[in-house]
Amino acid sequence: MRTVRLTVAFDGTRYEGWQSQRRGKTLQETIERTLERLFGKRTDLISSSRTDSGVHALGLVAHFKTSSALSDSTIRKALNFHLPGDILVLSARTAPDGFHARYSAVSKTYRYDLWNSATRPLREAPYAWWYPHRLDLPSMRQAARHLTGEHDFAAFRDKGEEDKSTVRRIHRITLKRHGKLLRIEITGSGFLRHMVRIIVGTLIEVGRGKMTPSRVAAILQSRDRSLAGPTAKPHGLTLVSVRYR
Amino acid sequence: MRTVRLTVAFDGTRYEGWQSQRRGKTLQETIERTLERLFGKRTDLISSSRTDSGVHALGLVAHFKTSSALSDSTIRKALNFHLPGDILVLSARTAPDGFHARYSAVSKTYRYDLWNSATRPLREAPYAWWYPHRLDLPSMRQAARHLTGEHDFAAFRDKGEEDKSTVRRIHRITLKRHGKLLRIEITGSGFLRHMVRIIVGTLIEVGRGKMTPSRVAAILQSRDRSLAGPTAKPHGLTLVSVRYR
Repeated sequence: MRTVRLTVAFDGTRYEGWQSQRRGKTLQETIERTLERLFGKRTDLISSSRTDSGVHALGLVAHFKTSSALSDSTIRKALNFHLPGDILVLSARTAPDGFHARYSAVSKTYRYDLWNSATRPLREAPYAWWYPHRLDLPSMRQAARHLTGEHDFAAFRDKGEEDKSTVRRIHRITLKRHGKLLRIEITGSGFLRHMVRIIVGTLIEVGRGKMTPSRVAAILQSRDRSLAGPTAKPHGLTLVSVRYR
Repeated sequence: MRTVRLTVAFDGTRYEGWQSQRRGKTLQETIERTLERLFGKRTDLISSSRTDSGVHALGLVAHFKTSSALSDSTIRKALNFHLPGDILVLSARTAPDGFHARYSAVSKTYRYDLWNSATRPLREAPYAWWYPHRLDLPSMRQAARHLTGEHDFAAFRDKGEEDKSTVRRIHRITLKRHGKLLRIEITGSGFLRHMVRIIVGTLIEVGRGKMTPSRVAAILQSRDRSLAGPTAKPHGLTLVSVRYR
């Protein structure tokens, strides 16, 4: 049995997220069904991340074990041939023994795109949350600096979180305008449930002047979810990449 | 009665083109129905271009006449509120008397996007034609130079063309790579039916080495459609902008 590591991009619009307890089509079962078709037997897929319904990916990593003799390149091509158009396998590579898509990950980068214009988006509509109001970038950047580093992010996670520890390390938060697109990119050791979207929702509160940048430090310390901003819409969120040791 | 000039962007995927004799939803009737809802009476819309089924626009221009007292800005906002998400009015402005979206146009710019990669496109899929084979850009540029200027483009138009003259002037053809995207941009005085797509199909024949660049000059002179390349798929084509005198 060898371990194969997949890098996967997808448009999450039509899916109930990576994995779901609810009814509806998930990304995991769609890819697992294609693997089963390819190998003639059920093949479990382990992912770096359980993305929510509507969230996209440009570089999610997943692995499976197989005794198939098919080459990595044949696996990639066969998967892309059979998968629906909104899922794309960017690479398939045999991984070193012991590789685990979830536990071997050392950091993840997410991007959140806001369409910050009075006019609604067209081509960008599935991938950016339309936010027509003025946003003050310098204050948002100031607020983001309070979140960088190792902190207890209990105030920035939603119920349903199973992890015991709510301590995470954020390496970097950048905010950049690309025309009408305001792109927030966050790299960290790992993220709690809805953590990126709650951070974005809170930065928006700061950007529109409803909250001071330093208020974000107080919210962190409070560990109280109700003090942070609302959870930003899922479709603006994209998992960009996952790094491994 | 004043004349209002609209600049319209749309995703042509779900439409039978701007105007169609066949069954199916057209962009013209979708926007006209919204104007009728807004003004309480049938309002004819005249367009700069009759785009084909599946072709997109970032800046098509159209005009209509109205006796409504609504401001330009209210018209734009009301249209965007009622139109489906794949049609967007970028601007609505009262035009000088005599303005005609079709006859006052002096030049148009089209863009054709090829996804030139072994791997199929994901987010770009609706707007770029997937062409996985190697393309030689210098030869394509050389071929494009033969098409620039005033020529009889009879070899580069499809049947169904009603215009008497097949002479047009191409001001500029540029070919640029943006990552995996190969973007061909063509500006000209006007274009015959399928002309841009046949030019792209012919440049591809040159790019893959099936035709020499100088062969393109001979095809122009022949006025014989059957000698030019195939018509490139519609979904890679986008009307970028229209200029007026």
